Amino acid sequence: MGIRNSYTDLLIIGAGPAGLMAACWASQYPIKTRIIDKKSERTRAGHADGINSRTMEIFDSFGIADLIMRQAVCIVEASYWGPDGKSGDIHRIKRQRSQPQKLSRFEQMLLNQGGIEQILIDYLKAKGRVHVERNRKADGLDPDGCCESECHDEFPVRVRIVSVKDEGKNELDCLSDDNTEVIHARYVIACDGARSWTQKQLQIPFDVWKTESTWGVMDIVPITDFPDIRHASAIRSSDGGSIMVVPRENGLVRFYLHINGGEGLNQDAEKESENSLNTLIQTAQKTLKPYRLTCKYCDWWSMYPIGRRLIKQYQSGRIFFAGDAAHTHSPKGGQGMNISMQDTYNLVWKLAEVIMGALDPAILETYHSERRPQAEELMRFDTRLVYAYEEGSMQDDSKVDVESVRSQYAGFMAGVAVTYPPSILVGECQSDKSLAWNIQVGKRLPSYLVVGQADGCPIHLAEKLRSNGSWRLLVFSGDLHSVSGLNRLSFFANEFSDRFHEIIKRSNKDCHLFETLLIHSSSRASINLLDLPDVFHQFDDDLGWDYSKVFADDPSYDGNSGEIYEHYGIDKQKGCLVVCRPDQHVGWVGDIEDVEGLERYFSRFLLRKTKPQV
Amino acid sequence: MGIRNSYTDLLIIGAGPAGLMAACWASQYPIKTRIIDKKSERTRAGHADGINSRTMEIFDSFGIADLIMRQAVCIVEASYWGPDGKSGDIHRIKRQRSQPQKLSRFEQMLLNQGGIEQILIDYLKAKGRVHVERNRKADGLDPDGCCESECHDEFPVRVRIVSVKDEGKNELDCLSDDNTEVIHARYVIACDGARSWTQKQLQIPFDVWKTESTWGVMDIVPITDFPDIRHASAIRSSDGGSIMVVPRENGLVRFYLHINGGEGLNQDAEKESENSLNTLIQTAQKTLKPYRLTCKYCDWWSMYPIGRRLIKQYQSGRIFFAGDAAHTHSPKGGQGMNISMQDTYNLVWKLAEVIMGALDPAILETYHSERRPQAEELMRFDTRLVYAYEEGSMQDDSKVDVESVRSQYAGFMAGVAVTYPPSILVGECQSDKSLAWNIQVGKRLPSYLVVGQADGCPIHLAEKLRSNGSWRLLVFSGDLHSVSGLNRLSFFANEFSDRFHEIIKRSNKDCHLFETLLIHSSSRASINLLDLPDVFHQFDDDLGWDYSKVFADDPSYDGNSGEIYEHYGIDKQKGCLVVCRPDQHVGWVGDIEDVEGLERYFSRFLLRKTKPQV
Repeated sequence: MGIRNSYTDLLIIGAGPAGLMAACWASQYPIKTRIIDKKSERTRAGHADGINSRTMEIFDSFGIADLIMRQAVCIVEASYWGPDGKSGDIHRIKRQRSQPQKLSRFEQMLLNQGGIEQILIDYLKAKGRVHVERNRKADGLDPDGCCESECHDEFPVRVRIVSVKDEGKNELDCLSDDNTEVIHARYVIACDGARSWTQKQLQIPFDVWKTESTWGVMDIVPITDFPDIRHASAIRSSDGGSIMVVPRENGLVRFYLHINGGEGLNQDAEKESENSLNTLIQTAQKTLKPYRLTCKYCDWWSMYPIGRRLIKQYQSGRIFFAGDAAHTHSPKGGQGMNISMQDTYNLVWKLAEVIMGALDPAILETYHSERRPQAEELMRFDTRLVYAYEEGSMQDDSKVDVESVRSQYAGFMAGVAVTYPPSILVGECQSDKSLAWNIQVGKRLPSYLVVGQADGCPIHLAEKLRSNGSWRLLVFSGDLHSVSGLNRLSFFANEFSDRFHEIIKRSNKDCHLFETLLIHSSSRASINLLDLPDVFHQFDDDLGWDYSKVFADDPSYDGNSGEIYEHYGIDKQKGCLVVCRPDQHVGWVGDIEDVEGLERYFSRFLLRKTKPQV
Repeated sequence: MGIRNSYTDLLIIGAGPAGLMAACWASQYPIKTRIIDKKSERTRAGHADGINSRTMEIFDSFGIADLIMRQAVCIVEASYWGPDGKSGDIHRIKRQRSQPQKLSRFEQMLLNQGGIEQILIDYLKAKGRVHVERNRKADGLDPDGCCESECHDEFPVRVRIVSVKDEGKNELDCLSDDNTEVIHARYVIACDGARSWTQKQLQIPFDVWKTESTWGVMDIVPITDFPDIRHASAIRSSDGGSIMVVPRENGLVRFYLHINGGEGLNQDAEKESENSLNTLIQTAQKTLKPYRLTCKYCDWWSMYPIGRRLIKQYQSGRIFFAGDAAHTHSPKGGQGMNISMQDTYNLVWKLAEVIMGALDPAILETYHSERRPQAEELMRFDTRLVYAYEEGSMQDDSKVDVESVRSQYAGFMAGVAVTYPPSILVGECQSDKSLAWNIQVGKRLPSYLVVGQADGCPIHLAEKLRSNGSWRLLVFSGDLHSVSGLNRLSFFANEFSDRFHEIIKRSNKDCHLFETLLIHSSSRASINLLDLPDVFHQFDDDLGWDYSKVFADDPSYDGNSGEIYEHYGIDKQKGCLVVCRPDQHVGWVGDIEDVEGLERYFSRFLLRKTKPQV
């Protein structure tokens, strides 16, 4: 057998959280996707564990938030401990909500990375379109193979893949042709971690921040009388010791510890694991005084120097970097895994819709322009946070404490403050800001309860914005009992049917490209769904009318809903149109009669005639 | 090979909803359980579909309510339609909450019986202790085999089991000894349906109500302009036609139709399925006028006369009847599957704890005394409901309409009004009713939010009352900052440690027999968990202190909790003790200092010395 050649739309290198999220997204689309990982199994224990509110929202958009919640621990409270002036023992300075306000319908959760990976792997299995190929490693990369003889223009990236028996081991044994495959891909996503092989091949430079210190981390079942062991606690002792404690599943608690002189320990870590673990526990014991700490069970531990690096370019031709391959930093803010998964959550719908011929490839540049600023912000946040833990002051001697950093970056830490700048995909700020005071173009649309017109059930609007690849036009019609309200809605419906005729037809075929939802502000009981314009209850020969697209901003029987216009700052007399991208970020806001503006927005990137490349 | 003999603690005959619920319960306990079913697979489509609030609570207590909610449809609204005086066409008389008030934290859900069975089967698989043996049929029963030679006193019920290739078919082929097994069981539960084989063997008589009429049922994807098709609707037309409509998963809608002259159709049903389905649709079309109805897809349909039967004895020696084997009635109230699963939910913890030697076998009599009155109530409810649908009046000509019957029986229909009478397991009504005005002995404890003392997370109290076999003592201590509050709690703790010493020791070994939870009414921030008496934070050499048993009746950070004392009507100065049985029904309520009364309650049925029979 010679070297096998194969072709795929999308190749994902690495099946950690970023790679698996990419695969889950890709499995929503009828494109050919492969994902390889050199390791023989998922992460077993330890590593990342923080799931922020926005990641929970994303999980929910795939219908798996409930599976996370079955296993994870919820964090609602944070306490801050510092040295007592007299005794030097620690005492509690403050205890408060861990996110200073309600930023999302989901709180922060904690679960070991392996558990999260497993849920994503199970999701892929159930979906059936993409599966993880393990013990497969990239070992040759030609970012544009078009100069060679067997060139296929449409699959320009060539990646040579070999089988490996185990991570790193016996690699040479496996370099025979039989085990080698050359994958010709339209696009590649490098999710191959902090020592990214792909980055090395392409020699993309990094911005690097100086490394200052070594941190230890351990997941143990603590035996302790420290009273705040079951919520997040930031602790500084009088001798400069510093710990972050977060509770975890199955009675585990994660400890992050600042290790003085830990550099040597770090190098010895693999050899002297028992000793180094003891060092971690002793360090924790010293910092926690007067409270006691012992443990009989340790699930995982590690020690490492903090290194901050940020890749200069997220995109190199048809190759994209995501996760640790693009950015590394300290784990203190619990952000790494979130930013990583949110990278590929931002990227893959764009790639898939370009591959399908629906969207202009020019949109792919927004991956860098949208995601790198987030990582820059992460570096700033992380720098401040680590200074706060270690020194209590910044380099310029300005005071900085953990609580104020966490408070200042609360929206960022929760992942809900992310606002993408104007681009081909993100319209300018609303020209008429009065349309929807609290909806920010470029930001993910926050979710509130509405009531199903047909069934009377209260439902979070986000549940209608599932990650299935659909763009959504949310029509806030206002009150349909006013003459002007009705007129506006019929004007919209006529114009829309006219100008979006082709898109609607394509959506009906593709099922998912585009969806129109109506949220009116009349009392639900006064509206008959079938009296509304057809676009809101389309007829299918086999299934009858669609009853699932109309909602009322009306109190449900329990009185929990009925404030979404108010939350969004939408005038019930004027209404408005809101476009949500497939990732729930708002792309455009306009007047309900501005169907022309809406068309202009879509014409920037929507290819009118589908040229299927698949 | 000869006939095999085998021994089991519990044999469940029939793997429908009642049998599967029995198996799920049994799999919580270290007893040997077998469940057989003559069919080769679970229910495919149709049959029962209503899940009431109490059944949802029970599912949640097994940790599977979320799996139901992923697939099922939620019903919050019911409409009532009747003939218009002039045109004779139907018009909406009323639309309102389907349960007149909030009776549970769960609403009514709808999902086809097969989907529910699958979730229970998956649960059994994951649990790994019990698995469904299919194509196995009981064909010989000796309720007490002790007269014979191979007698084992402890396994007195003998059931001969044969393999069958398919339901009923080729049965004789399989009657060779090779396929025959005699199961010797301590106890048997007959969940073998409306034509119960077990009942026929034992010839237990039924109470029978006269059969009046024939009903048709179909699950279709309707193409209709009837506006209330996505919520529950009760419809009566001018020609006496009568329909009940309920929305279902995947765009299906269930129709129940009263068929005039349907008896003939019923007999012909299996032969002329296409014609009979057409008859059902034509009947619906006539009743729904002026609205139109067609359909292209029918998932399932059936036609049957309404037969009401109720077995006279739920228990015959060591054999117990549950589900359709005990009671049959019309499906109109959506009650059948609920009452059936609630039967075995009531029974199996009793059987298991008797088998384990923990409880006195005398408690088994409460299965009949607790469950048969529920079925009697069901017969009364069903009779009234069917009269309301068919005639609009009862036999005595008193007016009766669907809405008023549903309203009158709302708590019963939701399954939350069930109150078991005083017995060995249920104390008399509180002597001092002022302890907890709104807690009723014999009724399931309603759930409200409390806040975890250790983690600050709001949690429904019910989530701490999981179906794992544990009895719970809920200690409502009141305010711990008053001297009397603290004194009462230490008095309780001392007395309890003293009198319940042995039980606590056994519980620590068995893990699950008995659990003590504290719900105080002080502000959470003012209490340190480890300062409380040891019984509320027991120490384990490997796991440290237990942080999971103390809760505050305090507003959480979102302000959703903090009213449980008020909901229960418990005085914050006095507090009280509440005992919940493993099925969440309240067994006893007493003063917080009445540990003697508590001991007296348990001494009625708790065997002080475990005699393990297993």
